[in-house]
Amino acid sequence: MKIKLINPNTTWSMTKSIENCAKKYANEGTAVYAVSPDIGVNSIECYVDEYLAIPGVLQEIVKGEEEGADAFVIACFGDPGLEAAREITDKPVVGIAEAAMATAKMIAPYFSIVSVLDRSVKITEDLVKGYGAKDFCKSIRSTGLSVLDFGTNIEKGLEALKEQSMIAVKEDGAECILLGCAGFVDFVEDLKQSLGVPVLDGVMPAVKFAEALVNMNLKTSKINTWGFPEEKEYIGYDLPSPQNR
Amino acid sequence: MKIKLINPNTTWSMTKSIENCAKKYANEGTAVYAVSPDIGVNSIECYVDEYLAIPGVLQEIVKGEEEGADAFVIACFGDPGLEAAREITDKPVVGIAEAAMATAKMIAPYFSIVSVLDRSVKITEDLVKGYGAKDFCKSIRSTGLSVLDFGTNIEKGLEALKEQSMIAVKEDGAECILLGCAGFVDFVEDLKQSLGVPVLDGVMPAVKFAEALVNMNLKTSKINTWGFPEEKEYIGYDLPSPQNR
Amino acid sequence: MKIKLINPNTTWSMTKSIENCAKKYANEGTAVYAVSPDIGVNSIECYVDEYLAIPGVLQEIVKGEEEGADAFVIACFGDPGLEAAREITDKPVVGIAEAAMATAKMIAPYFSIVSVLDRSVKITEDLVKGYGAKDFCKSIRSTGLSVLDFGTNIEKGLEALKEQSMIAVKEDGAECILLGCAGFVDFVEDLKQSLGVPVLDGVMPAVKFAEALVNMNLKTSKINTWGFPEEKEYIGYDLPSPQNR
Amino acid sequence: MKIKLINPNTTWSMTKSIENCAKKYANEGTAVYAVSPDIGVNSIECYVDEYLAIPGVLQEIVKGEEEGADAFVIACFGDPGLEAAREITDKPVVGIAEAAMATAKMIAPYFSIVSVLDRSVKITEDLVKGYGAKDFCKSIRSTGLSVLDFGTNIEKGLEALKEQSMIAVKEDGAECILLGCAGFVDFVEDLKQSLGVPVLDGVMPAVKFAEALVNMNLKTSKINTWGFPEEKEYIGYDLPSPQNR
Amino acid sequence: MKIKLINPNTTWSMTKSIENCAKKYANEGTAVYAVSPDIGVNSIECYVDEYLAIPGVLQEIVKGEEEGADAFVIACFGDPGLEAAREITDKPVVGIAEAAMATAKMIAPYFSIVSVLDRSVKITEDLVKGYGAKDFCKSIRSTGLSVLDFGTNIEKGLEALKEQSMIAVKEDGAECILLGCAGFVDFVEDLKQSLGVPVLDGVMPAVKFAEALVNMNLKTSKINTWGFPEEKEYIGYDLPSPQNR
Amino acid sequence: MKIKLINPNTTWSMTKSIENCAKKYANEGTAVYAVSPDIGVNSIECYVDEYLAIPGVLQEIVKGEEEGADAFVIACFGDPGLEAAREITDKPVVGIAEAAMATAKMIAPYFSIVSVLDRSVKITEDLVKGYGAKDFCKSIRSTGLSVLDFGTNIEKGLEALKEQSMIAVKEDGAECILLGCAGFVDFVEDLKQSLGVPVLDGVMPAVKFAEALVNMNLKTSKINTWGFPEEKEYIGYDLPSPQNR
Repeated sequence: MKIKLINPNTTWSMTKSIENCAKKYANEGTAVYAVSPDIGVNSIECYVDEYLAIPGVLQEIVKGEEEGADAFVIACFGDPGLEAAREITDKPVVGIAEAAMATAKMIAPYFSIVSVLDRSVKITEDLVKGYGAKDFCKSIRSTGLSVLDFGTNIEKGLEALKEQSMIAVKEDGAECILLGCAGFVDFVEDLKQSLGVPVLDGVMPAVKFAEALVNMNLKTSKINTWGFPEEKEYIGYDLPSPQNR
Repeated sequence: MKIKLINPNTTWSMTKSIENCAKKYANEGTAVYAVSPDIGVNSIECYVDEYLAIPGVLQEIVKGEEEGADAFVIACFGDPGLEAAREITDKPVVGIAEAAMATAKMIAPYFSIVSVLDRSVKITEDLVKGYGAKDFCKSIRSTGLSVLDFGTNIEKGLEALKEQSMIAVKEDGAECILLGCAGFVDFVEDLKQSLGVPVLDGVMPAVKFAEALVNMNLKTSKINTWGFPEEKEYIGYDLPSPQNR
Repeated sequence: MKIKLINPNTTWSMTKSIENCAKKYANEGTAVYAVSPDIGVNSIECYVDEYLAIPGVLQEIVKGEEEGADAFVIACFGDPGLEAAREITDKPVVGIAEAAMATAKMIAPYFSIVSVLDRSVKITEDLVKGYGAKDFCKSIRSTGLSVLDFGTNIEKGLEALKEQSMIAVKEDGAECILLGCAGFVDFVEDLKQSLGVPVLDGVMPAVKFAEALVNMNLKTSKINTWGFPEEKEYIGYDLPSPQNR
Repeated sequence: MKIKLINPNTTWSMTKSIENCAKKYANEGTAVYAVSPDIGVNSIECYVDEYLAIPGVLQEIVKGEEEGADAFVIACFGDPGLEAAREITDKPVVGIAEAAMATAKMIAPYFSIVSVLDRSVKITEDLVKGYGAKDFCKSIRSTGLSVLDFGTNIEKGLEALKEQSMIAVKEDGAECILLGCAGFVDFVEDLKQSLGVPVLDGVMPAVKFAEALVNMNLKTSKINTWGFPEEKEYIGYDLPSPQNR
Repeated sequence: MKIKLINPNTTWSMTKSIENCAKKYANEGTAVYAVSPDIGVNSIECYVDEYLAIPGVLQEIVKGEEEGADAFVIACFGDPGLEAAREITDKPVVGIAEAAMATAKMIAPYFSIVSVLDRSVKITEDLVKGYGAKDFCKSIRSTGLSVLDFGTNIEKGLEALKEQSMIAVKEDGAECILLGCAGFVDFVEDLKQSLGVPVLDGVMPAVKFAEALVNMNLKTSKINTWGFPEEKEYIGYDLPSPQNR
Repeated sequence: MKIKLINPNTTWSMTKSIENCAKKYANEGTAVYAVSPDIGVNSIECYVDEYLAIPGVLQEIVKGEEEGADAFVIACFGDPGLEAAREITDKPVVGIAEAAMATAKMIAPYFSIVSVLDRSVKITEDLVKGYGAKDFCKSIRSTGLSVLDFGTNIEKGLEALKEQSMIAVKEDGAECILLGCAGFVDFVEDLKQSLGVPVLDGVMPAVKFAEALVNMNLKTSKINTWGFPEEKEYIGYDLPSPQNR
């Protein structure tokens, strides 16, 4: 089995640590690899970033089909373009936010999400609502640090995550912490230790769920909403129109 | 006052009829003009289409600032990229779906939306929920015709809209009909006549609301969520990075 | 075009400043005038007040029809009697709370409402829910001052509004402030200056929306819920029974 | 114990049958009596009717205090003015819709409401939502007959109620029927017989709950929202201003 | 009339005080008696406790039918097994949490619940949601004391309840306090005195509602969901299979 | 890895087919085995059945710990006792309804559930709400056949499932079908073939998720709600009190 992880931003150092995390948790027979798209933005923190990232994600899905991928993981906590990805392929596509929340609900009655900038909170909030997880999510907390800050100053990043997670547990009633950025995969163990509650990154469960979906021979339902796109012209993208695929 | 309407798809005949509708309802002192983006897709019916359209919409917003636009209208019933557009400029940006629903609520207790393909229903449904209009929306009905079908066979399109609207009024309890595609601007009068309830296209109220926002000197709140994007690299788009604007 | 604003309470000094605000924002061709009803209560702060005010509001709507009004604005943040007003006339009727919320949603992802007495909070909360704006409203804060306090001690009123608005922005996450009383029209500019986020009174957008509805030739849907009242006897009011109009 | 029932409309024949129903179910020691207000409307089917009825209801509450009433029942399925009534007295006030729904939830998982005109459905729907009963209410059905039709043609009324109730049970999944008009008290037994599910009028449980509240020495909380109204001027009503009571 | 109260835990001292409370508020003609089941757990604070208690509750319902009970009260604030109890008998069954919330809504716009351990909060929260009372419930506060702590140290228990109730009123906006444990019946009067808002235990209203339901000749709807259980084998319980009753 | 599946009813033929299904989908290194409890009921179709089944499920969890199970699956579509099971062990416990819904959301935007008796619909509905899946679930349909009917007449059962699933797809808008009973594991393939949309039994994904949770070293959060039960007496069950384990 081959699982392709797409880091929707163009920062390959992050792509690398996502791949490492995936490799650590994948089953023996599963080949995993992570890429960043050719077009897009180097970190995703607002709606503009999300929307500039998605066409590149879709291009990688299409390429992934040719590469023989059996399933895809979109490895950014906003799950950018998830529904579109499910239209453009019938292979399972899993978002890391979706996977993290589905997992959290099985090990704790309530979780909180600890994220990057304040402005990203609404994107996460909309996701939580969209996945029907509102009643399970006690709070969405931000560290005030940007995605790239976490790359350049790991110590500071970890400290900020610890602090906000602690407040989430002590004051907001969280019984599990979700890390709201794919760039946080390396912080899981440290945080788990100090918090006394389960700590979840989304990459890990997304890989496991992608494997599970392939194991179960499940494919995306093509009967209506997520059917393949209609024939039409795509202008300005390195993406074949549906009728040319 | 200058209002720029952006038809997110690349079908200029539709752009033209949107512009005509806008001109008809704009105040005397208001200059309105409509464009289609350089990149994107020729009709918008699924998530892939939406996401391929948005970067072009954002490019047009940025160009619009240089052109001296005082406000923007995104003229596709999915309001694609609306939140991102509000980040990238501080001028008011109005989506036609949002404007149509806000207006409908002032003239009827319940509305229904009549749209294109079955698969588009979920996009509309998500919008309705996102705008807090779920309790006002009795149904979202589709005609089974594509956006482009409506352009090529007007008779058939009108007939299908009439039929679905009638069912919405008679069976679903709609007391007002919203036309769920910017391509339907020319059908409003005909439908109104035959249905006996108000019929609303979104372009018309979006233009009026954009005017109103400019008249009230209101600008998008920049304090957090919809603040200008952070400095970063945009790759593969004809869009200046925030630090270069 | 002629727009009649009805201040549902009987305090004419407030009616006057509502009229002034309306005149400032109305289009050139629009005649606006504000009145208070003959029966009712001198300020509206609880359910009893609301219900004593509404029959007078309805009387003014009926008189307004004779006066040639093309649209109506109910200028009290509780939008008292809005649905009844929409039954008794087919001319557009806009409530200032409804207009303020619809506008706020177009310029900010979240707003807070700053209001008068603590006890009024629930009325406002019910409105917010009723308009589907719950997910957009971060908090409803009260100053603890009565409607009439604001008239007699402007300084103190402004201070209290500033304080609560500041908390709404800093602690509750509001990105826009709505002033929850028609008596606050004169505070908008001052507050905007000191808060750094958009500040909205409801009179201003209600007038603009009323104009817009008239421009679009829209009338209230009469097909069912908001149809004209059935024939029956009205006892004790200066209001013609439906069959006598 | 003395319970005053207020029929908010001015049709005394209905007031009489409400009183009869109340007498039948009241405990031995309980004196019950029903009245109609001096001002208002002869039947309540739309928002205008509701709002014209409420001031009269409030007058009857105030008079009721002088008459020594220990609790009040508002006997119209829209519970018009219920919150205001709870402000103006500290004696328990029970609405028949509220009482019917609270009771229904204890004897069936789902109910439907069968009501008068189509246009009244939204008022009922808003009530259901307001009482948190939305998930328990399978449907709100209307007979298309007016309140007064039921008085003039009992046979026809009963037939229409039977028909709609049957559909509610068979198609909508109702397991209990609520009669959505105080004028229906006399139909309960007949309907119960033919439907095979519990049938509830609201007068009966409202009287029992009013008794229960008095037995428990409970009074309306006066700490904030439903506190007595502030001192102010009431103009045009036979209702003493709060400071004169 | 005979009402059987079932204290789902096996602590008979609590059963006794529940019975005393019930006797105090029952009508003259009503015989009330309280029991604990033979199997179960001595206090109920988590899901395990709830589920171990329910079979014993059901056994007591069946025995109660033989004892001639006309109605049942389940006297634990989690209302454990309420829906099952309504299946196994057609006599009215009232839960104390349900009764408390229904009553609170009639005397205050908002309530808070003060309960035992932190871990019990979610059970209560789920109840509140399940009864459609979410919008009325300002907070669920826990004292951190166990059910049995309250029995052994009454002073400390009362102090803790007072403290949390005070916070609920002052900070959370509660206008009425519900005591979230049947073991709290004896604290009602003391708390009422010091808080200035209504304080409700659930036993008292549950008894009154049970009486009311019997007075109205209402029985549980047997048409579908709460119909008597199907014929089948019950293994390991002192409970006759449905076909043997 | 060792996964114990608990069929909460006492019908061992069903337990066997659950075990077979689990074996088919488990990873190579995973040992799976299924059991029925010693006490309980032979099929689960109403609340009484659920509650009689749960104590036996808890007993099997405790035994499973001794047997060295690494994770548990509760294999009845009502997920009976799931939260209690998560209290009594810290090993992952997965419910089949929960697993089925989490999986369905990843491969289709909307699903429907096809179940046994009409009366079971509400239990399923409550589950759907409880898991935050209400917006994804288009309908819950029942075949009118009992759990045991399906065992005795497979043909008829399959036919009924096909019919209801077809309606769910064609009329309700389902794009994926969930089989709402663990007894349906053997129907998946047949239904998939004839329906053209994904068909999911819950056993299969529950096993995969249990494996995934073990692979990720995740355990149930013990910090509060789902902490181990407090010390207390358990009477009448073959279950050690917490202090004796």
